[in-house]
Amino acid sequence: MSVLRVGLLGCGTVGAAVVRRLHDRAGLYRERTGAELQVSGIAVRDVEAPREIPAEARPLLTTDADAMLAGCDVLVELMGGLEPARGLMAQALDRGIPVVTGNKQVIARHGGDLHARARASGTLLTYEAAVLAAIPVLHTVRDMLAGDRITAISGVMNGSTNYVLDLAGRQRVPFADALRQAAELGYLEADPTEDVEGLDATAKIVVLARAAWGVEVAMEDVARTGITGITDTDVDAARDAGQVIRLIAEATRRGPDDETPDVGVSVAPRRLDAADPLAVQGAGNVVEIQAESAGTLRLSGAGAGGEETAAAVLGDLVGVARALLATRS
Amino acid sequence: MSVLRVGLLGCGTVGAAVVRRLHDRAGLYRERTGAELQVSGIAVRDVEAPREIPAEARPLLTTDADAMLAGCDVLVELMGGLEPARGLMAQALDRGIPVVTGNKQVIARHGGDLHARARASGTLLTYEAAVLAAIPVLHTVRDMLAGDRITAISGVMNGSTNYVLDLAGRQRVPFADALRQAAELGYLEADPTEDVEGLDATAKIVVLARAAWGVEVAMEDVARTGITGITDTDVDAARDAGQVIRLIAEATRRGPDDETPDVGVSVAPRRLDAADPLAVQGAGNVVEIQAESAGTLRLSGAGAGGEETAAAVLGDLVGVARALLATRS
Repeated sequence: MSVLRVGLLGCGTVGAAVVRRLHDRAGLYRERTGAELQVSGIAVRDVEAPREIPAEARPLLTTDADAMLAGCDVLVELMGGLEPARGLMAQALDRGIPVVTGNKQVIARHGGDLHARARASGTLLTYEAAVLAAIPVLHTVRDMLAGDRITAISGVMNGSTNYVLDLAGRQRVPFADALRQAAELGYLEADPTEDVEGLDATAKIVVLARAAWGVEVAMEDVARTGITGITDTDVDAARDAGQVIRLIAEATRRGPDDETPDVGVSVAPRRLDAADPLAVQGAGNVVEIQAESAGTLRLSGAGAGGEETAAAVLGDLVGVARALLATRS
Repeated sequence: MSVLRVGLLGCGTVGAAVVRRLHDRAGLYRERTGAELQVSGIAVRDVEAPREIPAEARPLLTTDADAMLAGCDVLVELMGGLEPARGLMAQALDRGIPVVTGNKQVIARHGGDLHARARASGTLLTYEAAVLAAIPVLHTVRDMLAGDRITAISGVMNGSTNYVLDLAGRQRVPFADALRQAAELGYLEADPTEDVEGLDATAKIVVLARAAWGVEVAMEDVARTGITGITDTDVDAARDAGQVIRLIAEATRRGPDDETPDVGVSVAPRRLDAADPLAVQGAGNVVEIQAESAGTLRLSGAGAGGEETAAAVLGDLVGVARALLATRS
């Protein structure tokens, strides 16, 4: 039985879920890949930080990311943030080590460069987890519709802000209180800027636009409005009109078919009819993809969460393992 | 520029859409695959039958399937029916020619054998189009959730019968009239047995069960009830209770995690709350996938139609072309 050494960079909520699943489901992964997916090292900032991982995995924790990288066949990056995550992924790809990541900010800003590195050394870079966890939107846009022309992608791509908007709209909680409740329940981070200013949704739609049309859209070029300017008056006015407010991320292809796509990308609060399929409730996520032949496809589910994101990471990891083992044999 | 010779078997609604798109979007496919996807032959029963294909493609029509097969690098099977479709796909795979098909009946009944042939000669067999056209359900079950444990798959997998049920339920059209109208509008075939007896939905859920759990479920072993036994009294009783009737195909994994999955598969009309996400309207399709880590994913769209099914065929074809060209270089 071949062994595939899996190096982890970062071991927060998602990383710990990946480590637990690789441990609990070892038999399943053996069966599905023909190899032992063995965690070979877990590089973290603080070895002592509390984390829910099996006792067998504790000795693998290290602060030496370089040593971890040197001893793995595939890198799973889940530390988040721009640096050192980007630099370490670039290093791995340059050495021909495939990378699975859930880092939407790095992929949105540096995906083009990282893909070029992966191509140059003939290895793989995958990041389904970076866009809406296990909702198969990236795959659908890139592979499933590879034979079609996508015309638009839109949806609710941030669960935290949707939770706030739904609480204010449907449950009539004052907007400021809704923000506070979302923070208390852990839907919003201590620094909620990424979510409430729409940066998280912006990164996702930028990654999807690249996958759909091969275009590079800078984060700074996205017409972006967060939810912080929304008032109780806005929420009430929408409700009185039978509508709800949702933070909609949207990318639309303009211009003639045979030229380089001119793609407009925006993230902004919009009023939708309460019955609109995009008017998803709670912390749910939904994406609508429109394509010339396929028509309108709609994908929904939990677009965040440790377990849900780990599912996407592990799906990518099984795919990478199969590809690596096909090359070995 | 490499040329990839695409042989078509069958040229009905879906086949003609594939031929048209390969013609119209030649530039797109060159860009996405690095090769010219060139239709090399179209084997049909009747060369003279009316079909909407470009004039350039007409001379490629032939009744000689063997000659078509001998001259192609990839076979696209869209003739439907069990034989000779199955036999010709088997021949192609045995010779190492990759096969893209939308034939749910052949894949449901003989997918295991055809996969074994593909493996034996190291080639590819893909059939996303066989299950709900471009709704990416097969990929989600097989690849996206390859690192997860799927526990259940359920949904409305036949648009024709859903159209009838929705017409009777929501529009209060007597059930027999709804069946007649669906036939007049082309939603039901002249012989509607496949749809109304649930055989079409059964084939799809059998293919999904194999993809999810690696189990072979015989069509005959599926607990199957069609919609022909439904009466106006049933429809009215459901409506009075705020419910609708839907033909639900369902596969559930039972038994402990580490044993060979015991999978229960059924197709039957069920009463759902009108607000249930599976209570889709018109000829729409929807599938819900439940997995241990990913939670509940919901995918919906048009699960049939010439253009929509062609989108899935062309997506598979681009994938196969990329894989073939990676091997060549």
